[in-house]
Amino acid sequence: MADTASGTDPSGTLSDSPSDSPGTDWERVLNPRTVVILGASGRADNPMARPLRWLAERGFAGRVVPVNPKYDELAGLPCAASLADVEGPVDLVLAMVPAARAAEAVQDAGRAGAVAVIVFASGFAEVGPEGAALQEELVAAARETGVRVFGPNCQGIVHTPSRLFASFSAAAERPLTESSGIAYVGQSGAIGGSVLDLAAERGLDLTTWVSTGNQADVDLTEIGRYLVCRPEISVLAVYVENLRDGAAYARMAETAAAHGTALVVLRSGRSAAGKRAAVSHTGAMVGDDTAFRLVSRRHGVVLVDDVEELLAAATMLRGQPRPTGRGVAAVTTSGGAGILAADRCEGLGLRLPELAPETQEKLARLVPEFGALANPVDVTAQLFNRGDRAFGEVCAIVCADPSVDSLLVLVTMVTGQEAVALAEDLAAAMRGGPVPCAVAWLAGPDRTVEARALLTAAGIPVFGSVAVASRVLAELVREPGPDAVAAAPAPPGPLPSDGWELLDAIGVPRPEGRSAATAEEAERIAGELGGPVVLKAEGPAHKSEVGGVRMDVPPAEVGQVAAELLGLGGAVLVQRRAPAGLELLVGATSGGDGWPPVVTVGLGGVATEIHRDLATALAPLDRDAARALLRELRSWPLLAGHRGAEPLAVDAAVDAIVAVSRAATDPTVAELEINPLIVGRDGVVAVDVLVRRTEEER
Amino acid sequence: MADTASGTDPSGTLSDSPSDSPGTDWERVLNPRTVVILGASGRADNPMARPLRWLAERGFAGRVVPVNPKYDELAGLPCAASLADVEGPVDLVLAMVPAARAAEAVQDAGRAGAVAVIVFASGFAEVGPEGAALQEELVAAARETGVRVFGPNCQGIVHTPSRLFASFSAAAERPLTESSGIAYVGQSGAIGGSVLDLAAERGLDLTTWVSTGNQADVDLTEIGRYLVCRPEISVLAVYVENLRDGAAYARMAETAAAHGTALVVLRSGRSAAGKRAAVSHTGAMVGDDTAFRLVSRRHGVVLVDDVEELLAAATMLRGQPRPTGRGVAAVTTSGGAGILAADRCEGLGLRLPELAPETQEKLARLVPEFGALANPVDVTAQLFNRGDRAFGEVCAIVCADPSVDSLLVLVTMVTGQEAVALAEDLAAAMRGGPVPCAVAWLAGPDRTVEARALLTAAGIPVFGSVAVASRVLAELVREPGPDAVAAAPAPPGPLPSDGWELLDAIGVPRPEGRSAATAEEAERIAGELGGPVVLKAEGPAHKSEVGGVRMDVPPAEVGQVAAELLGLGGAVLVQRRAPAGLELLVGATSGGDGWPPVVTVGLGGVATEIHRDLATALAPLDRDAARALLRELRSWPLLAGHRGAEPLAVDAAVDAIVAVSRAATDPTVAELEINPLIVGRDGVVAVDVLVRRTEEER
Repeated sequence: MADTASGTDPSGTLSDSPSDSPGTDWERVLNPRTVVILGASGRADNPMARPLRWLAERGFAGRVVPVNPKYDELAGLPCAASLADVEGPVDLVLAMVPAARAAEAVQDAGRAGAVAVIVFASGFAEVGPEGAALQEELVAAARETGVRVFGPNCQGIVHTPSRLFASFSAAAERPLTESSGIAYVGQSGAIGGSVLDLAAERGLDLTTWVSTGNQADVDLTEIGRYLVCRPEISVLAVYVENLRDGAAYARMAETAAAHGTALVVLRSGRSAAGKRAAVSHTGAMVGDDTAFRLVSRRHGVVLVDDVEELLAAATMLRGQPRPTGRGVAAVTTSGGAGILAADRCEGLGLRLPELAPETQEKLARLVPEFGALANPVDVTAQLFNRGDRAFGEVCAIVCADPSVDSLLVLVTMVTGQEAVALAEDLAAAMRGGPVPCAVAWLAGPDRTVEARALLTAAGIPVFGSVAVASRVLAELVREPGPDAVAAAPAPPGPLPSDGWELLDAIGVPRPEGRSAATAEEAERIAGELGGPVVLKAEGPAHKSEVGGVRMDVPPAEVGQVAAELLGLGGAVLVQRRAPAGLELLVGATSGGDGWPPVVTVGLGGVATEIHRDLATALAPLDRDAARALLRELRSWPLLAGHRGAEPLAVDAAVDAIVAVSRAATDPTVAELEINPLIVGRDGVVAVDVLVRRTEEER
Repeated sequence: MADTASGTDPSGTLSDSPSDSPGTDWERVLNPRTVVILGASGRADNPMARPLRWLAERGFAGRVVPVNPKYDELAGLPCAASLADVEGPVDLVLAMVPAARAAEAVQDAGRAGAVAVIVFASGFAEVGPEGAALQEELVAAARETGVRVFGPNCQGIVHTPSRLFASFSAAAERPLTESSGIAYVGQSGAIGGSVLDLAAERGLDLTTWVSTGNQADVDLTEIGRYLVCRPEISVLAVYVENLRDGAAYARMAETAAAHGTALVVLRSGRSAAGKRAAVSHTGAMVGDDTAFRLVSRRHGVVLVDDVEELLAAATMLRGQPRPTGRGVAAVTTSGGAGILAADRCEGLGLRLPELAPETQEKLARLVPEFGALANPVDVTAQLFNRGDRAFGEVCAIVCADPSVDSLLVLVTMVTGQEAVALAEDLAAAMRGGPVPCAVAWLAGPDRTVEARALLTAAGIPVFGSVAVASRVLAELVREPGPDAVAAAPAPPGPLPSDGWELLDAIGVPRPEGRSAATAEEAERIAGELGGPVVLKAEGPAHKSEVGGVRMDVPPAEVGQVAAELLGLGGAVLVQRRAPAGLELLVGATSGGDGWPPVVTVGLGGVATEIHRDLATALAPLDRDAARALLRELRSWPLLAGHRGAEPLAVDAAVDAIVAVSRAATDPTVAELEINPLIVGRDGVVAVDVLVRRTEEER
């Protein structure tokens, strides 16, 4: 990882670096005075010949120097025999050289005073040990020279304002129109190429586009964090497979929020099959998803699930605000499409509130007789046959309703000039308003080209699918989670290694009891506790599966049962019987790789995996956040008092969750899990506890 | 409902009618010799002028007679002053008349010997009581004359082979190319228009297209059932809001299966908001979704959630088989897209199995070095730069792997002629094979026009979204549910009204106990049962919420507790305490509206609504089907013996489910619910039962 800088100075360098690195002058990368193309190709049909051609022909204002000893001239430009032969200062080097020569290219670039080298070649860490060794050499060259390296195995950089085409992606082939304020950063150049091409097809040129490939040196979080500070960028769209440094991701997200730049992230490799595929793709393991999601939520990052959604969300966030609630109004030209949208939205946790009577009254003056006013608002095709262009006004009235957080417009067979009029009216009605809008247009795209372009330019994405449009609206809703209210309490003192002692130290009650090494000792302890006891084999992880837990053992049988359990290979714990109550799981795992620890609460006991009723938040939690977490559980009514039952000791459960969440911030705690924590009417008891310490343990 | 016929004779009439109706000659509707346009418009800009223009100009071979007393000639055709003035036999009448004159038009059509009238006008049942009266008049005229009526409030019929444009939908405007074998039937003309237009934009002309509107007479299940018998139709795509007759739907599905015609159904109005919108749209309530889903599954109907998916599924089923399992192979030009697809597929319950070593060996000879072979198979962009056209061969090898049930192809920036070559090779490789294929193409549609058209023509749908492509593949998987194995046992004999007696009659055990009208009687019964008892107030539905259930009442307290419960207003039930065990819910509801009864099993007791762990099937069930239903529950491990616990009496639970499912087929049973059925180690006990009888109760 090469997150050598962490400042947010938009001047072009990252200043408040935590390391000794002086910071990189990224401005010299995006607006270079001199670009050198090392190994420039003379074969026009070679994709690697594209950067030189594009830099020579498409308005780049700086100097371009091809380097290839076989030519005197390439693309009409004088060719140098080597990088050492290039006169004057060099800013950026495009290394079109094989993997084995990449490190040497970086050394040469260092001597020439370049700020960065882009290494396009494959054949590094992604192909095995030999390639990994080449990648290490490359990193060593970068560290030694101070030259920053993009890639290897990447597709480079496009920066529209300076006409910098430092990429061979075929997606950059289209003529440029207007810089959109959307930037893309991602490991995958292919996914990036799709985003670039699909955006351009809709009339949006990405302002800046960076494929980071194997990220041997420059990581997407580092360049991403720089880009969100640039004033001409309003949205950063990110595609990421593995995030090696949670803290760097959090810093990028925090910086984006501080600069008012929207951040949309598509992360792949989250399923088991996806993780396997990701390992073979980039040679890196994909870490846990939970901390990533929670950190994203904390900093207001929009998470999406598909390339189409990445671009759509970015399109919306260029010019429209995020919805602040789950209330959607559907305005439709077809009753059927409105019903479909209602189904989809509700399935995604959105609501279609009935519009206020005053709103419906206003709409009644515009919507034809056979339409509908409640939500969905069905304007019917007649509104367009009538030709009075009331569609924009209808949408404005709907958006003014206090229950409406976002607008979903559904259009069926409105085409041609009618479509253009609809698009103009809708764009005008939405401009500058607080309610964002998406459109699902169910007619042949060829009959609605101009209308779609108009809407996209206005920041209103147009979908061919009701389901996808609804999904993007749902993904954009900004809702703070329980952890967003977390205060930062004093960390706990040094924690004992033993689980039961740790519980005592953090103040979570546990059943009275002691460990016994012999059957006789077990009998003695049971006698002291009085009444039936619980006996547990100490050691086996899934005790109940191996018969290692015996409930309600009467005093007379303690000796015999203890002897059996001692036969499983460890000591035996003799505990007073726990009171009746609801069994919860309260756990926490340390983040690792710079991720914050995550707290999990859920329905516990033997059925934990069956019910999978779990909620998570970033540690530490205060009491309000812990209570909010419990309320996220389906089982919350069982705690709060369900169907006339008396409520359980929620306050005591909250105390235990807060204590566990604080303990999880101790860097020596890798994992801490109480299961079950029995929540009774008068308090809680931790019946079993598991602690795993990190290697840092003191 | 006008399902006046139910035969499957493809000759054009439905012969084995259960009613006395002679059956309708639908062939005369789709291939009419004479079409009369009543109220033909002379204003060219009026959408209602389209049918006449299209019939006159676009190759319709029959006679077209416009009727309008104001004109001598319209669209170059002689105009009649009234329907009575039209000479010779009339087949089909397009009634372009206001709602108030529609019934009269049907009467006139009857006198002219027409087989059917299409009523386009709105203003009937969907607008309130006045319109409903007009609709009743219309139905009366249809019944009286025997003329079949399409609509009202519909957009009519298009039949491509005969060039019958009996519709004003702007979607029919495009020039015709080739009949696709796909038919559409739906209530919504707007949704239908979208399907028609989007299909045509992809080069597929729908063979037959029918918008049924308010369905005053002809229901979509009736005309749909006729269409699935026609040899030129291979797929029927249906959009439906309300299904008034479950039996008619089942007959359509069954007929489609018998004729090997694929049936794809998009049903809207399934969410609460959707139902509300549907009522205002068509004036009809949407019924329960469960029976619809189960009947669909039984007959192999593909259910989809969006217009885009409806068309995509239909496109696939024209020329490709349905996947028979959940194993998906992804072949991708980009590692990133492959990982995304793996994530999406796994989230939808599909699997990406690792390909067999032999398969990977064969692939290794074709896939470039930096690619991946396991699944996703990443061919990398280099495969195309190389120009050896190995893509088709790669896909063929992958499809031959025994673990592969369907193929998902992911293409990023392959465009232009390279794209065409890829499409040709893929189409050739898939032709006639047993593995269906879908493509997600993540490049600007304008750069892949020809390639997309090629694939669509080959029955391979092309999506712009990985998520939607994965979703359609998941929807197409054919999996029989538990009810598919149901035998039809003898119905149970007459059932008693009282719930407890009904349990005795069907053989489901219940705790010993009796009802008491006084506290003294309760004490006497408790004495006979011996030990602590359970007392329940008889009457309140949610007994536990009002404190109407008292567990473990010791003999000395029975009198006092019984007196309290009697104070709630009914008798009190005194029962022996039920043994410990897992609480299940076992219930059944009668279908109503022609739908078969549905059995529900799930985790029961007070937490039923919290855990929502439920599974459903059509009644009746045999023992195998009942057991399969239990295995669908998340809680199944709790029954089968979880983490070393002893298994519970699953056989006894199965017996109870079979008994309830049989009782549900009794037409007098509207609802029957045992909750909880306690499943212990040695048997089951029904602790509470609810029975609701239908109005038919004898």
